[in-house]
Amino acid sequence: MHTSTAIDTLISARWIIPIEPANTVLHDHSIAIDGGRIVAILPTTEARQQFVADHYHQLTDHVLMPGLVNLHNHAAMTLLRGYADDLALMTWLKGHIWPAESRHVSSEFVRDGARLACAEMLKGGTTCFNDMYFFPEAVAEVVVETGIRGVMGMVVIEFPTAYASDPDDYLSKGCAMRDRWQQEPLLSFTLAPHAPYTISNMTFEKINVLANQLDVPIHIHLHETADEITQSLAQYQQRPLARLHELGLLSPNLIAVHAVHFNADEIALLAKHGSHIAHCPASNLKLASGFAPIAQMLDNGLNVGIGTDGAASNNKLDMFSEMRLTALLAKGVANDAAALPAHTALTMATLNGARALSLDDKIGSLVTGKQADLIAVDLAQINTLPTFDPASALVYSAGREQVSHVWVNGRLLVDNHQLTQLDERALKMNAKIWQNRITA
Amino acid sequence: MHTSTAIDTLISARWIIPIEPANTVLHDHSIAIDGGRIVAILPTTEARQQFVADHYHQLTDHVLMPGLVNLHNHAAMTLLRGYADDLALMTWLKGHIWPAESRHVSSEFVRDGARLACAEMLKGGTTCFNDMYFFPEAVAEVVVETGIRGVMGMVVIEFPTAYASDPDDYLSKGCAMRDRWQQEPLLSFTLAPHAPYTISNMTFEKINVLANQLDVPIHIHLHETADEITQSLAQYQQRPLARLHELGLLSPNLIAVHAVHFNADEIALLAKHGSHIAHCPASNLKLASGFAPIAQMLDNGLNVGIGTDGAASNNKLDMFSEMRLTALLAKGVANDAAALPAHTALTMATLNGARALSLDDKIGSLVTGKQADLIAVDLAQINTLPTFDPASALVYSAGREQVSHVWVNGRLLVDNHQLTQLDERALKMNAKIWQNRITA
Repeated sequence: MHTSTAIDTLISARWIIPIEPANTVLHDHSIAIDGGRIVAILPTTEARQQFVADHYHQLTDHVLMPGLVNLHNHAAMTLLRGYADDLALMTWLKGHIWPAESRHVSSEFVRDGARLACAEMLKGGTTCFNDMYFFPEAVAEVVVETGIRGVMGMVVIEFPTAYASDPDDYLSKGCAMRDRWQQEPLLSFTLAPHAPYTISNMTFEKINVLANQLDVPIHIHLHETADEITQSLAQYQQRPLARLHELGLLSPNLIAVHAVHFNADEIALLAKHGSHIAHCPASNLKLASGFAPIAQMLDNGLNVGIGTDGAASNNKLDMFSEMRLTALLAKGVANDAAALPAHTALTMATLNGARALSLDDKIGSLVTGKQADLIAVDLAQINTLPTFDPASALVYSAGREQVSHVWVNGRLLVDNHQLTQLDERALKMNAKIWQNRITA
Repeated sequence: MHTSTAIDTLISARWIIPIEPANTVLHDHSIAIDGGRIVAILPTTEARQQFVADHYHQLTDHVLMPGLVNLHNHAAMTLLRGYADDLALMTWLKGHIWPAESRHVSSEFVRDGARLACAEMLKGGTTCFNDMYFFPEAVAEVVVETGIRGVMGMVVIEFPTAYASDPDDYLSKGCAMRDRWQQEPLLSFTLAPHAPYTISNMTFEKINVLANQLDVPIHIHLHETADEITQSLAQYQQRPLARLHELGLLSPNLIAVHAVHFNADEIALLAKHGSHIAHCPASNLKLASGFAPIAQMLDNGLNVGIGTDGAASNNKLDMFSEMRLTALLAKGVANDAAALPAHTALTMATLNGARALSLDDKIGSLVTGKQADLIAVDLAQINTLPTFDPASALVYSAGREQVSHVWVNGRLLVDNHQLTQLDERALKMNAKIWQNRITA
């Protein structure tokens, strides 16, 4: 005689890759979810005896893994996907992107762009994204509407835009957003100064005080291009990282985005301060920013997560594509085919991203007690057969179209490839309307 | 009053990218196909008046483009996809791939592996592949069965395998294959010596005589790794390309695969002789072979096509992924975001590949009189909206899963994402059987 426990959801799968413990593949296991949390991970035969679930998913050809954490995005820029490609960075920014933004960016633009981005990310297995853009409140609203997890940047840039007039205005709007949404379980916050070359020392000092007060990460583009370093040497007689160090910004709360041009001393310095890297491999190549020394960073104990960057400079919000590119590029740059194996790429795209965002107590791995942010990937497809190793199949062979189910906080947001909270037809129509407006 | 012409197939699409003329996007045009050939490309309004077709496809959200030409593959190795990853090249080859091959490679293995590969390639928009492997007759049979276009290598390697005992045996088996299948319109042939480090001068001389006699391309791995060059300098006191040059192999019939480690003089020499490059970007990274200087090659007027390499070292047969990686990597390596724009990537993956194979009189672009090898890609998906530029969308945003229709020689091989000539269930079952055998 035995008693069964009633739970919300039980998911049985051929494989589970929990990320913690490292390099683990569980066969024929199940995940029990209740009240949005993982309550047990155990062999399926035991799970069926132990639990009675309202919703039961038997995924016979699938791997379950944590939802992907997109560590750097400008979600709203999805409306500018492919608007201006194959151009040098400054031509691209000054001749195309900034003028388009100055004509179009508004709360409405940001909401519609973010909604399209969330649809793309969810269908491709991303359950959490770290965003930096104007009108972040509009993104926060979309996060709550769609059920994805989002980290909203309190964006700051030295010059005025349609969103804010000066650094103090950006900061006060960011703080107001945080105050309004602080209790929302799907949302958390960063301070998001754009880059060292668009932020004054005075503004950095304010940001530093605020970051310590609020205990939020600082999310910043850093050492993306060689030019930015040359310019900093001319203006400040020091490299951007040295400047940030002097200003007291190096800490476990720093997320350095792109991080292409760090030398060995700088990598050691970042590691010593427990700072984090958001690696954006496709964007770094597309804008010809350079090759980030990722294997070297990992060897130095730096925590490196992965981001897509915005769809204007990628042009996908596809973490499967980024995982694969991360693993492949790291081997090429390190001149070592054994560098950055599949399990490391999976960890970077999940737990490392969560850690950078100080969310690793909640998400990033499949562990009892964490929130149920997870995805199922169908590997019984032509593209992923044979399947000698599901971790390798996920990183090197699978496409995001093989993501079949997505849960965030235990809620099913993608059910057999279909979005449950968003109307895909309406989204497509809306994207076309924006396209017409932007090209008008 | 007017008369209509009866044809097999008429396809109307929102966009056509014909590749020739260069950088062209036609809007609301149609392609008329009869007897396997393109008989007209014209505005849809005129096409509907001029032609009456047995099969009419109205593809309102799609782009039509030439089928992708995969310029380097070992199709049968799809059965070893993901069998051994994240290993140094020699550990990978000597410790894993070669032992697995020596246990399993047979005519049956090659046939089953090639069938899986053809299914994957067709669904992803590849209509022609250039193959190099043992038992090529088994691949030829699969080509005819599936209706894809294939270029079969008359493979040669200095040492004995299950397929042949010595170079003369390889060559005579290759020639017998060519004799048997010479009249088959879907098949053509190359001489396929494996690599300079596995072929003696004597064998190269025989191959050269035969290549001139038969007027077929020579398809060879060349300057893939730095080690191969060091070894050649020790053994022959010259770099591999210099050795091939001395042996008289540099000509418009040479397809140099990988071509990672060419210096400026060697690039100029190859260009002078009208030779071709098969660029395999994912494989070069995965095995840490290095970064091929593709923008430099293009600037020198070299003809560069794109290949996936085999699924054991990629692990996808996904030409969309390779196009994107080609464009991104070239920018990174050339330190120029304007290098290798989208139309160039599309041309490399189609016409340049056809040209390397001496098939550009038949395929590689959508031009009246050429064979009807073409694909439709549905761009009205979340991932490719907005669509400011369909060429950019194809290269930077689209996934192969957006390929909806594929025709080879006018025959519909993929119809609304479904294979028409292959049983996908049976293929999957078969892949699992081979997986069990290989891991047994």
